[in-house]
Amino acid sequence: MQRSPEATRFVLVAGTTETARRDGLSAAGADPDLLSTTPAADAELLTYGRPVRTDTVPVSPSGCPTPALVTRAVRELVGFDLTVVDGGLAEPTGAPTVSVGAGVGRDIGEQDPVPTAYGAFEAARQFGRRLPTNELWLAETVPGGTTTALGVLRALGEDAMVSSSLPENPVERKRAAVSEGLEASSLAPGEAAGEPKRAVRRMGDPVLATLSGLATGALETDTPVTLAGGTQQLAVAALVRHTGYEGRLGLATTSYVADDPTADLRASAAGLGLDLTVTDPGFDASDHVGMARFVAGEAKEGVGMGGALALSDRAGVPMAEVRERFAGVYDDLLESDATDAEKSPASGGSG
Amino acid sequence: MQRSPEATRFVLVAGTTETARRDGLSAAGADPDLLSTTPAADAELLTYGRPVRTDTVPVSPSGCPTPALVTRAVRELVGFDLTVVDGGLAEPTGAPTVSVGAGVGRDIGEQDPVPTAYGAFEAARQFGRRLPTNELWLAETVPGGTTTALGVLRALGEDAMVSSSLPENPVERKRAAVSEGLEASSLAPGEAAGEPKRAVRRMGDPVLATLSGLATGALETDTPVTLAGGTQQLAVAALVRHTGYEGRLGLATTSYVADDPTADLRASAAGLGLDLTVTDPGFDASDHVGMARFVAGEAKEGVGMGGALALSDRAGVPMAEVRERFAGVYDDLLESDATDAEKSPASGGSG
Repeated sequence: MQRSPEATRFVLVAGTTETARRDGLSAAGADPDLLSTTPAADAELLTYGRPVRTDTVPVSPSGCPTPALVTRAVRELVGFDLTVVDGGLAEPTGAPTVSVGAGVGRDIGEQDPVPTAYGAFEAARQFGRRLPTNELWLAETVPGGTTTALGVLRALGEDAMVSSSLPENPVERKRAAVSEGLEASSLAPGEAAGEPKRAVRRMGDPVLATLSGLATGALETDTPVTLAGGTQQLAVAALVRHTGYEGRLGLATTSYVADDPTADLRASAAGLGLDLTVTDPGFDASDHVGMARFVAGEAKEGVGMGGALALSDRAGVPMAEVRERFAGVYDDLLESDATDAEKSPASGGSG
Repeated sequence: MQRSPEATRFVLVAGTTETARRDGLSAAGADPDLLSTTPAADAELLTYGRPVRTDTVPVSPSGCPTPALVTRAVRELVGFDLTVVDGGLAEPTGAPTVSVGAGVGRDIGEQDPVPTAYGAFEAARQFGRRLPTNELWLAETVPGGTTTALGVLRALGEDAMVSSSLPENPVERKRAAVSEGLEASSLAPGEAAGEPKRAVRRMGDPVLATLSGLATGALETDTPVTLAGGTQQLAVAALVRHTGYEGRLGLATTSYVADDPTADLRASAAGLGLDLTVTDPGFDASDHVGMARFVAGEAKEGVGMGGALALSDRAGVPMAEVRERFAGVYDDLLESDATDAEKSPASGGSG
């Protein structure tokens, strides 16, 4: 095997926002303490294929695993390079991480929920400028992140709606949280248009600040960027557009997000001028419990799942092989970890 | 390419000790400020093949490059997994790192130069217990590290002598620094026998604390460990032996360290019961400037160079191919970086 600095590189930004502690916002709802571990666990799963410092594989009470297992399965098949950036982790991770100075995000209802946003954006931007790669795929894991994504979209004056890791999108709860946040930040909707760092500091989370900085830096140096994820990545795309960048930008997501009627991803992506790739993992062809939960509308996306599926598709890996590998990863981890899995409420990745 | 969690894993522990600021102890002697950047740069070179957050490739004034370039060349040919652990970095690195709580090491002449030693040892031990791999190769980069290695050996009562990154080993300076350290720590030679954490806290550096913790944890869980490096790794081996471990432990180094008459590596390795592998990169067959400086006795080892050479040998890669790749890496980096290289005094890795 030869490794070239010009390969495809996946960057996973893993972090937290206390917004996830609000009732009923995330599939990771049962226990806020375990929820804050999900990004650290996702980073380990993608890096090593198993938990190292964390104890559990994030799985929802109904058995939906973190989408990190799908992305990991693809990584085992396709072999992309991986860099994890600390976008405000609350718990230690055994995955190696790059620091950009992002701290834990506070609740969206506070006046200044992401005080590290400016610094993290700029450090991530410098890192994105210099990171050697031919193409950059950006992924996220931040429970509660669709609510902060909605907050950023509203602050920028973008009318896109966000999806959910829950089968029933708690749209009203999200809107209420965003209204509370706008009031606390003394912002009218659209008032932060053209001011992406202000929007993400007042209404977002540290993962969004870091991702938009990384994308901006990479694009400034002509590295193609694909945002791997769902409606949280729409917020990243909006932040990048509000820096003034008008060039190409990709969004790669799953069919579960693209088909979610509570968000109109295709229209929003078109409105932001994104090159959209939607990939269906074909989980409805299986009766595997992990796949069935996705088909039922849980999780939908996260930890770069849609981007990973797009990469495997591009590499010519049959989707049946991805499903088989995912089932293998799931069975290995959750058979040996059945007791712990019962205790973990999080479904990882998307919020 | 399939990636398995059971592959060969290299762990590079990168950190600093202010002992390196003493005059004439390291090939990285001209400018203490740049010297503290060497481990951060080595981590980036091994991870990405080029500097990312750091500005320069560590090169001695006479043109000897950091051995990181040799290890990187082998990584490009053989493709081992890499994890970088922060063993007390003084400067930010763009390489992803795992934290074990190690802080910058203070001067060996202080009473308590490594206050984070106990915590770093234990965190590294836990990490070593759980890190998924079939075999662990441990590497280091810490300028000044042979002096702290000598300090640890003396505190433990081991009579091994250490090598040097300089062509002329400043043996008397090292002995004087160690005597000063023993006095400041109120330790008689051999007084810390059987107390490895005490020895490394009072006379060592945070990289030695981290490496010995990693090795101990991996060995406790029956993961084979090879210490990749020179006489600094002898000190790690001694620390591991003084935990009471009597099983197999490997040491893989270069012919430059093994042939250094100022240290008797073979006898010391035998005394510690190590399985020794010595690999000659055959640089004397070349007139390439980077290789010629190694042949002249500079650097000798560091950043796992000897271990990388052993891995390439085991994989059946002809040494001529390693030399060719190394020359390519060197020429790419130092032709595009000629001005910066002039400014950088460090030769990386070994101390």
